This record gives sequence, structure tokens and C-alpha cells, in this order.
Amino acid sequence: METQTKQQLFEQARSWVLEAGEKIRQQMEQPFKVETKAGPNDLVTELDKETEKFFVEKINSTYPDHKLFGEEGFGDEIKTLDGTVWIVDPIDGTMNFVHQKRNFAISVGVYQDGVGEFGIIYDVMADVLYTGIQGEGAYKNGKRLDSLSKPQSLESSILCINSFWALRNKRVSEEGIHRLVEKVRGTRSFGSAALEFAYVAEGIIDGYLTMSLMPWDIAAGIVIVEEAGGITTQADGEPVNMLEKNSILTSHKDIHNEIVSEYIELKK
Amino acid sequence: METQTKQQLFEQARSWVLEAGEKIRQQMEQPFKVETKAGPNDLVTELDKETEKFFVEKINSTYPDHKLFGEEGFGDEIKTLDGTVWIVDPIDGTMNFVHQKRNFAISVGVYQDGVGEFGIIYDVMADVLYTGIQGEGAYKNGKRLDSLSKPQSLESSILCINSFWALRNKRVSEEGIHRLVEKVRGTRSFGSAALEFAYVAEGIIDGYLTMSLMPWDIAAGIVIVEEAGGITTQADGEPVNMLEKNSILTSHKDIHNEIVSEYIELKK
Repeated sequence: METQTKQQLFEQARSWVLEAGEKIRQQMEQPFKVETKAGPNDLVTELDKETEKFFVEKINSTYPDHKLFGEEGFGDEIKTLDGTVWIVDPIDGTMNFVHQKRNFAISVGVYQDGVGEFGIIYDVMADVLYTGIQGEGAYKNGKRLDSLSKPQSLESSILCINSFWALRNKRVSEEGIHRLVEKVRGTRSFGSAALEFAYVAEGIIDGYLTMSLMPWDIAAGIVIVEEAGGITTQADGEPVNMLEKNSILTSHKDIHNEIVSEYIELKK
Repeated sequence: METQTKQQLFEQARSWVLEAGEKIRQQMEQPFKVETKAGPNDLVTELDKETEKFFVEKINSTYPDHKLFGEEGFGDEIKTLDGTVWIVDPIDGTMNFVHQKRNFAISVGVYQDGVGEFGIIYDVMADVLYTGIQGEGAYKNGKRLDSLSKPQSLESSILCINSFWALRNKRVSEEGIHRLVEKVRGTRSFGSAALEFAYVAEGIIDGYLTMSLMPWDIAAGIVIVEEAGGITTQADGEPVNMLEKNSILTSHKDIHNEIVSEYIELKK
């Protein structure tokens, strides 16, 4: 994608994301909306759908040759990443939305023939915008992110990992996970994949390891982390497949290979 | 403690906490302070000490008959909780301070003859103040917290637990922890005990389970959670001992006994 086209498309996407976030905040700030009989579970379902439809309508009318690949299924059926594809999670961190009324994000990644052109992750309630444009760096609220350029060792790292993956499970050998949790300085878990990618880009955590994410959970994050100097692969080091479910390790470059080679054994 | 005395003491404590927080923020906003050769590890050590000394000086000069029991050891040697004791963690969440430059808190609990009179937890960088005064409710930035009055089931709960406690460890049977992590709706981990107590009080998580906390990690949180309608005990249901290290379960009342009786087996 040409630089000027990409920049214009990014500015358009950014303004739509902020507009969608403002709509969500307005709904959240109406207590009767959140506290109705059906409760926040129904509200998030409704807002998830509304927000994806908002992007579908904007994109269809402005860029009729672009496609949208989204969690709620109002976009296109995507079998290839040919052309320009918007990969959208209208509300990433549904459980946080319901339980916390914060710590959820809108995630939008735009890919051209399978290449991530830019990513936008918007922490809606905190009004914090993480962005990355391929070749032009990663930003938090417009300020360049550069923490990942400093050296990092695994034993001084904070890793995002959900406790679930330390239990006997179908996807990864828990023995390796146990050694990894003991090796790192500490673990955290925030409950939004998009925000956990953003935190890796920001350098406030050094890696995020999980076993099952859909393309819309990761499309924006991959670009932002890469532009911040980090790296994302499947948990066994294989390239991510943006049309399928993936295991994910996104991290500072200095610790990525060590985690993959010394601690991760996927169950096939 | 008489209501008027308690209220005056609370107002004084609150203003000192805000003042100490402002001092910490000022230091954090000087990049050369954070990025010196020795780095943020030394800064947090320095600020931890400075902040505790600030409270020691304020309390000694204003309330010479009160005692201070704090992490950094500049206060009094405490063998009993007789009299009025300020239990202070100047920076709770040291690893977050160093790594994230946010998500840490000042925690101050004031106890009279062993009874929690009030608690204050200040999320310094977010400028969010959680307070609880015994018999008068819990508040976030002055707004009453009442989420814990709604019914809560364990299977719909979000529990704060660090992955570490799902590994083989010296304190708790990991088999029960595994069943618990599988039972609840989700788990989180934020890395600041004081903030995790505050989040329980706020109802954005339903419980926080951990195996080793010192009195200054919990003194404020216990009062705030109780005033929000929750309950705190050791992880096996025994009362907390405010002079020693404790395992801790702080949670919504509806799920507390079920966790203790069905999932926790402490190793003695």
C-alpha cells in the first residue's frame, strides 16, 4: 500500500474508532442501560453487534472494494486475505465489559494482501489509543513507544498468562508453563487480548502468552507490537495464520526465542 | 474510637495520603529520575523509604501517642495492636512501579486496639482514592460502593489469583486451586494486593486469593472490603492476624465459604 493511501486510510479508521468508542461510552454512562433486567450481558451483545455494524456500514459506503472480517459476522465471509481487509473486534474483553465496565477495547487491523498495514487498539473507557503503522512506528495517544529497544532478560520479565494454562489442558504442556512461571519475575492477567498486546508494545509487560485467539483478537496488536520493536508468532514459533485460530506469543525480541525453545510444548 | 475523632483522623490521613501521592507523581514525571543509570529499581526503593518517613514524621509530630507499623521499618516495632496503630505500605505493587510506572498504591489502615477504624488505598498514577470508614461505608473517589450487595455465584465470578499458586508450592494444595480456576468464570492478576482489595470492594472482581501477605498489604483493604459488604479471612477461613504474614481470601460474601470449604487446602 502506498504511504499516502495508507496514511489517509489510517486517519479515516482512527476517526471511526474514536467515534465508535464515544458511542459505547455514552451507552455505558446511562445506568439504566447497564442495569436493566437482562443486565450487562445483553448490553455487551447489543453493543458488540452495533459497533461491528457501524464499521461495516462505514467501510461499505466509503471503500466498497474493501472487506471486513469481524467477530460478530456482519462483515464478509473471508477465505483469503487478498485485497484490503479490515479485521475488527468491536469489543475485545467482553468479560471485562460485563464485570468491570472498563478494561475492554476496540481492535481494528487493516491488512493488504495479508500484510498488516496498520493497527488501532482503543481502550474505550480510559480513552487511550494505541496505534501502529507499518514502517512508521507505534504510538500511545500520539506519543512514540520505544521501550522494546532496551535489552530484556527472561528472569526480569513480567509475562501475561492466564492461570488456566498452568492447569492440565488440551493445548500446551503444563510442565513447561510451570517452569516458565517460576522463571519469570512475575505474571499478570488483564482479560483483554488486544490490551495485552498494547501493554507489550508499551513495554509495561514483556510478553503475552496464550493458547487460543481468533484473528480479530490479534490483527491490530501484531502490527503495533512489531512497530514497537517486538515480535509475534504462534506459541511454537510458527508464523501466525490470520485466517484461523492461533496460539500466540507476543513479546520483546530478547525473550521470544528462549520462551519458544525452552518452555513451550504444544499438544498436537 | 468516637465517631468525631475517627472522622477527623480520617480527614487528616486522607490529606497526607494525597500529599504523599502527589510527591510520588512529581518524581515519576521527571524522566531523568526514572531513567538514571541505577534505574527504576533504585527510585522505588528511595520513594518507598521517603514516603514511609513522610508518614512517620507527620504522625509523630501530630499524634505522638500513635504508632506506625510499616513495610520499610522506619516506624515502631509493633508487638501488639494496643492503642492507635497506623499500618502503612508506602508503595504497594513495587514490581508494577518499576515495570509499568503505574498500577501501584499507597495503603494506609488505622486500627484502634486491633479494630480497623478506616482504610485508604490510593492508586497514585490514576489518582483514584478508595476509602472505607468502619460503619460508614466504602467509597471510590467519594462515590459510595455498593456492588457487593447483589447476589453472586462462584461460576459467574472473576477471581484474582496469580498463576504461581496453580504450580506445586509450599502453601496450598494445587489440586484445589486447579478445580477453582476451572470453576470460576475467569481469573485475573494485577500485581498490587492493595489494588486487588480495592477492586473486590468495587465489585469489578469478585474475590482475591493469595497465600502470603504482610499486614501493611491488607490493613486498609480489609476495612474497605468489609464496608463494601465483603469479607476477608485467611484462605482457610481463620481470622486474619494483623501482626503476622497471612494467606488471604477477600471476596463477595456469597462465594467466600464455598471457596474455603470446597477448594482450599493449606499445607501446614
